[in-house]
Amino acid sequence: MPVYQDPDDPRALNADDLRTWTAAVLGALGTPGDIAADVAEILLSSDRRGIASHGTARLPQYVSLVDAGVVDPAARPVLERDLPALGRFDAQNGWGHHASRVAIDRAIEGARSVGSYVAVLRRSNHYGIAGWYALRAAQAGMIGMSLTNSSPLVAPTRARIPMIGTNPIAVAAPAGRFGSVCLDMATSTVPRGRIEVASRRGHVLPVGWAIDVDGNPATTPAAALGGALQPLGGGEDTAGYKGYGLGLVVDLLTGVLAGAAYGPNIIPLFSTHDGIADLGQMFWVIDPAALDEPGAFEGRLETYLGQLIDAPLIPDAPGRVLIPGEPEAAAEQRAAARGVVIDREHHEALAAIAQRFGVPLPAASTPEPWTGDHEVTA
Amino acid sequence: MPVYQDPDDPRALNADDLRTWTAAVLGALGTPGDIAADVAEILLSSDRRGIASHGTARLPQYVSLVDAGVVDPAARPVLERDLPALGRFDAQNGWGHHASRVAIDRAIEGARSVGSYVAVLRRSNHYGIAGWYALRAAQAGMIGMSLTNSSPLVAPTRARIPMIGTNPIAVAAPAGRFGSVCLDMATSTVPRGRIEVASRRGHVLPVGWAIDVDGNPATTPAAALGGALQPLGGGEDTAGYKGYGLGLVVDLLTGVLAGAAYGPNIIPLFSTHDGIADLGQMFWVIDPAALDEPGAFEGRLETYLGQLIDAPLIPDAPGRVLIPGEPEAAAEQRAAARGVVIDREHHEALAAIAQRFGVPLPAASTPEPWTGDHEVTA
Repeated sequence: MPVYQDPDDPRALNADDLRTWTAAVLGALGTPGDIAADVAEILLSSDRRGIASHGTARLPQYVSLVDAGVVDPAARPVLERDLPALGRFDAQNGWGHHASRVAIDRAIEGARSVGSYVAVLRRSNHYGIAGWYALRAAQAGMIGMSLTNSSPLVAPTRARIPMIGTNPIAVAAPAGRFGSVCLDMATSTVPRGRIEVASRRGHVLPVGWAIDVDGNPATTPAAALGGALQPLGGGEDTAGYKGYGLGLVVDLLTGVLAGAAYGPNIIPLFSTHDGIADLGQMFWVIDPAALDEPGAFEGRLETYLGQLIDAPLIPDAPGRVLIPGEPEAAAEQRAAARGVVIDREHHEALAAIAQRFGVPLPAASTPEPWTGDHEVTA
Repeated sequence: MPVYQDPDDPRALNADDLRTWTAAVLGALGTPGDIAADVAEILLSSDRRGIASHGTARLPQYVSLVDAGVVDPAARPVLERDLPALGRFDAQNGWGHHASRVAIDRAIEGARSVGSYVAVLRRSNHYGIAGWYALRAAQAGMIGMSLTNSSPLVAPTRARIPMIGTNPIAVAAPAGRFGSVCLDMATSTVPRGRIEVASRRGHVLPVGWAIDVDGNPATTPAAALGGALQPLGGGEDTAGYKGYGLGLVVDLLTGVLAGAAYGPNIIPLFSTHDGIADLGQMFWVIDPAALDEPGAFEGRLETYLGQLIDAPLIPDAPGRVLIPGEPEAAAEQRAAARGVVIDREHHEALAAIAQRFGVPLPAASTPEPWTGDHEVTA
């Protein structure tokens, strides 16, 4: 949980305006309006939650994928198998965000009907932040889980090369006065973006983040970017095999279960010349109200979270115990107060897209330095 | 994945004989025969899989709990809520192993009928190894997940005191020629038993395993045993907040969802004077055959695992890439070849129980030193 820091040379854009603009660009790419609205909503949610790597910063790659004919911007998911508590969708190689929004909504509806539901997707694409789908279930009063597999970046314990994606796990639940809990974590120690940030800032890396091309611990960002990420836990003596196992389980429940690509067979992220991504996703929803009087689950969770934030602290703690999702919720408040703050490179990429499609980018301003809370996840 | 090493002064007992004996002791405690058979089967599975801390070594504590009137040895679980894809059991404070066997069987049956099923338990007790229940689903051709909460031993990121259990996650699936995959992991970096082993062997501890009573990294086992375990990932700079989040999610899906005890409110492990444990458990089963032709899921998983074990290795790798559950499967083969190998203290504890209940302990022999494979999990 690194400290929040504005990018150098920051620009602030109003989040609603940027979402409307993003949807218009997607429309210009051939995306029907309802699908474009889903994709834009999920990209902006990422920007607002402070996870720049999964938001509108990806638009240049998304445009390239459509230009190359790799992603079908107009495709709609088809429910291929339909049991009372299990469904499989073919996402038809359309936007992963839209297909996944349809799937989590089906799972919420299924859980309301029979108590719990599992939806899996094949032939899907990048779906943005895993947490958005889990939170959608939490907002419906339910427990939601969201998983996706992804391009190989992580070396299994003992292996020298990347064979498994950073395969995230997101779980969210409604939490009374705390709003919600939302764990949204890559199963690697850190995502690749954290190493790119360390590279730009000239930092050395802690042991346990990555290995170099020869399989030795990477101490510099350059060595790490040429090697592989390590699974959560790092090396074998600090239980990195658990992070490896979790990443494998995510693949098992997504690509392997849904009949999509998996593990080392997934093409590189945003590649335009290796065929389709054929990613797998899974959504799992449980309705706690089916087991209890309304509000009982939320009440217990609220009590628990209250105990956690009151814990006595270690000597060098930068603040109190945090609840999963709390840094992202703080980022949403920042974005509401002063817009989505992006760096110059990101802004220039959006401006180029605006020019190409003739859709004027909303005005950007220079934000005042942030003086509030500084917690955020990367 | 430490190397397998026989205990000092080892004794070997035939696994089937030890299971029969264990069931007889449980019977003498007032446990009906079918319930005793479940408990004995699950305890012996732990011994055979090389996880001594969760097998018959716990019998003295189990006997104490019945002696103290804390656990009801004759109780049977009651299905309180019964939806097509979600059920809640009251374990009635009986043996957690039996109630959980009933619950996973209900989940398998439910998944066969509607595609997936979630069973939760409240008012339960210690249930042995999490993996046994997940493997039971795998043996039925399904994907199984097994979760339990447990007494607080882990300090959340930034906290100085233990507030969350080692809350394990187990996931298993059928895997063709590989038999099965079975991830069975505590959400702490290591279980407390690993630190007890380090204490007996006079080892220092890697950073990331535990903190001392003041919240600083514990470098000696004594300091760790007086402090708290760290979550998977260790400190904040190596993403220990992910392990903390996973442990919290296990509690959310077990104690909080089922309406059992949770987090810091759970009494100490095997306490005889704090009331009942009121643990929560969750079992989740998905039927892959409902999505695909029979064998298709297993075939994909087999291909994936074959790719993983062929990976090029890091320079100091002690062997090839392992599949989750492989060390435990190797331990089962060892136990089949030469019996369950236990240490002297464990053997003496069983002998004392045998004498008290008048149930003669099976004969023990001194095993030949093990010369086969040496991989095992602790």
